[in-house]
Amino acid sequence: MTRKKLRIGLFGFGVVGQGLYEVLEKTPALHAQIVKICVKDRIKERTIAASHFTFHQHELLYNDVINVIVELIDDAEAAYHIVKTAMENGKAVVSANKKMIAEHLDELIALQQKYQVPFLYEAAVCAGIPVIRNLEEYYDNELIHSISGIVNGSTNYILTKMSETGTDYQEALREAQAAGYAESDPWLDVSGRDAVNKLSILVAHAWGRWIHPDAIVSKGIDELATSDFEIASVHDLKIRLKTFASRKDNRLITYVLPAFTSSNDPAYRVNGVFNGVEIESSFADKHYFSGKGAGAYPTASAVLSDISAISYDYKYEYKKRESGQKLNLDLVFSVNVYFRFTGNVHKVKTYFDEVKALVEREGEYILIGSIPLSKIPYLNGPVIAVPDEILDELAASLNLSETLMPAEV
Amino acid sequence: MTRKKLRIGLFGFGVVGQGLYEVLEKTPALHAQIVKICVKDRIKERTIAASHFTFHQHELLYNDVINVIVELIDDAEAAYHIVKTAMENGKAVVSANKKMIAEHLDELIALQQKYQVPFLYEAAVCAGIPVIRNLEEYYDNELIHSISGIVNGSTNYILTKMSETGTDYQEALREAQAAGYAESDPWLDVSGRDAVNKLSILVAHAWGRWIHPDAIVSKGIDELATSDFEIASVHDLKIRLKTFASRKDNRLITYVLPAFTSSNDPAYRVNGVFNGVEIESSFADKHYFSGKGAGAYPTASAVLSDISAISYDYKYEYKKRESGQKLNLDLVFSVNVYFRFTGNVHKVKTYFDEVKALVEREGEYILIGSIPLSKIPYLNGPVIAVPDEILDELAASLNLSETLMPAEV
Repeated sequence: MTRKKLRIGLFGFGVVGQGLYEVLEKTPALHAQIVKICVKDRIKERTIAASHFTFHQHELLYNDVINVIVELIDDAEAAYHIVKTAMENGKAVVSANKKMIAEHLDELIALQQKYQVPFLYEAAVCAGIPVIRNLEEYYDNELIHSISGIVNGSTNYILTKMSETGTDYQEALREAQAAGYAESDPWLDVSGRDAVNKLSILVAHAWGRWIHPDAIVSKGIDELATSDFEIASVHDLKIRLKTFASRKDNRLITYVLPAFTSSNDPAYRVNGVFNGVEIESSFADKHYFSGKGAGAYPTASAVLSDISAISYDYKYEYKKRESGQKLNLDLVFSVNVYFRFTGNVHKVKTYFDEVKALVEREGEYILIGSIPLSKIPYLNGPVIAVPDEILDELAASLNLSETLMPAEV
Repeated sequence: MTRKKLRIGLFGFGVVGQGLYEVLEKTPALHAQIVKICVKDRIKERTIAASHFTFHQHELLYNDVINVIVELIDDAEAAYHIVKTAMENGKAVVSANKKMIAEHLDELIALQQKYQVPFLYEAAVCAGIPVIRNLEEYYDNELIHSISGIVNGSTNYILTKMSETGTDYQEALREAQAAGYAESDPWLDVSGRDAVNKLSILVAHAWGRWIHPDAIVSKGIDELATSDFEIASVHDLKIRLKTFASRKDNRLITYVLPAFTSSNDPAYRVNGVFNGVEIESSFADKHYFSGKGAGAYPTASAVLSDISAISYDYKYEYKKRESGQKLNLDLVFSVNVYFRFTGNVHKVKTYFDEVKALVEREGEYILIGSIPLSKIPYLNGPVIAVPDEILDELAASLNLSETLMPAEV
């Protein structure tokens, strides 16, 4: 089988873009050459000669020599325009922009079908871990029960710090930023929104159903306090930002929530910027995939695998969109959560199906109970999912705790 | 994308064959129908009607209605004949027979190329965990540094029992047989030969180089004794049957050996019949895949994924065989091992490059040292690989042990 020679137009020369440049230099066997790099900042000093760069998109998008566009910029709307124009011009595209892909997936699939060009984005989820490729090619949609795990390295780094050293959120965030693992504007990560975008992509490849990220219920990690970690620690639990999707008949349940995690869960041992995803399916049971989920080289490695796949003309076929039944998002599904808050207890209780524990400490309340997904956005304060197997123990221990006063239920 | 309708001729109705039958019954969306099942035993009672069965191979192999042959029998030579004849008759083939595949891979690839039919065998390695598919499609050969892990569920079950409960080898083997995890003739598993066959297949898909299983150095678990597990336990180590392959420049290093395994190694937490494989590559670093490695349904799930892939005309392309440099097996490479033996100490020492510890206990010797792979087959007794990070500690503790006498070096 012969490989197509690839001549790449690269958008963006940040951490991942530079990583890709170096990685391609070190893999001559791929015969992939970067023809030109388009960047925005005209002043910034670069590590390679100025002749590699242009500030004009059209020098890449309308360049007949270039047959692959690799898009590694931050701005999702600009990225969408680039990817669309590239496909319209018959160029294969590789992207790592999960926000852009999650928000535009239906249009992007239509463009691929219209222009018959590969559009690959393994790097958008879990860096180099081949989760999208396996969902797309290996697991039949009828058989997948659930996907769960840790897909955001920045928040996992922060949560690991907070768990291990007792640092508070602000300090852990500063350390993550200093280490280059969190953006100067960390909102996308810490709000859980980045994980939501990734979940939207995973669900599309698992079951062939695109869910707009706005429809996925989520809570971030930015309201967690050391007191929450102390409670976790007493029960030998860790707090991890869990991304979860499951299918029951024709219903899809999806959410991103911080979760108490016991040592039975592989997520318990996912530390720092590592990611880990568990795919549960009929017959095969649980398969677990893990590895580095962030960083220049791990992300560039996924881009590299996509580039290599394009050299053999590989495309996502989105086979699952065409087969199988129509799946509907289930927002009435109830999850067990821990919720810490101040304010009107009676109003908060109306959101819950059932309250298992409700205690007070220094003017703050902690409630453990089950709540429909659709009501979680109304909760103003930190929410942590509680797995079934520890629900009763956690609720009982709160009710009996000496430092917490049972509140009037 | 439309799926081809599959009409299956199934060889074998043992544990996995029955599992596949049930699994197909439960996945009507696949539109795969078992037309006929060929079995050998004419007397055995079956769980389904006699009309499903035949005792004549030709009723499947020369049946124009059947377009896929699924081969799930024990006998590797008979399986080879079936697979070959099926391909010659233009039928796609799915097999789980690692012994047959590992021993005949070059011929089987030539047959596929000649008759242009898919021949898939994900179930041959780690049951449903998609290791072959990922090595084939996702990881470029130039970039893979190493593959290591646990690929044999029966021996892992036995080793887990021996580690956890202090049972001796014979008793643990009996328990594995009673639980259906070891054959009545367990030789293929406990000798390490089954893992060697799987390693041969993994290497072929990782680097495009077929190594005959006879050329892979291995030691099994059948000579391990409780005293070896006691030493492991003192150092918080477990003993696992590790399958290992790495590439350095144009050399390939491969072996299957019991290994002392520390808690830093994901294999440490692979218990019972689970499997776990770590793929280390440039840029992506270490990716870890784990799940159930044995059992009717986990194995049938891999067969099912292959059948599903055939419905979309997927084939292994063996792209890596055609590209890249010629790799040679390195048998001079030295590994650090623990070796327990009786007999001529001076002769044994001549096999080793370096001896780090040599002690005596009740007429038995324990030696820790580094030995070229090619010399390991000469060692008559249990051999356990010792990872670098614990070598000095283990050697020092043996030399200082009160129950062991330093032997004359």
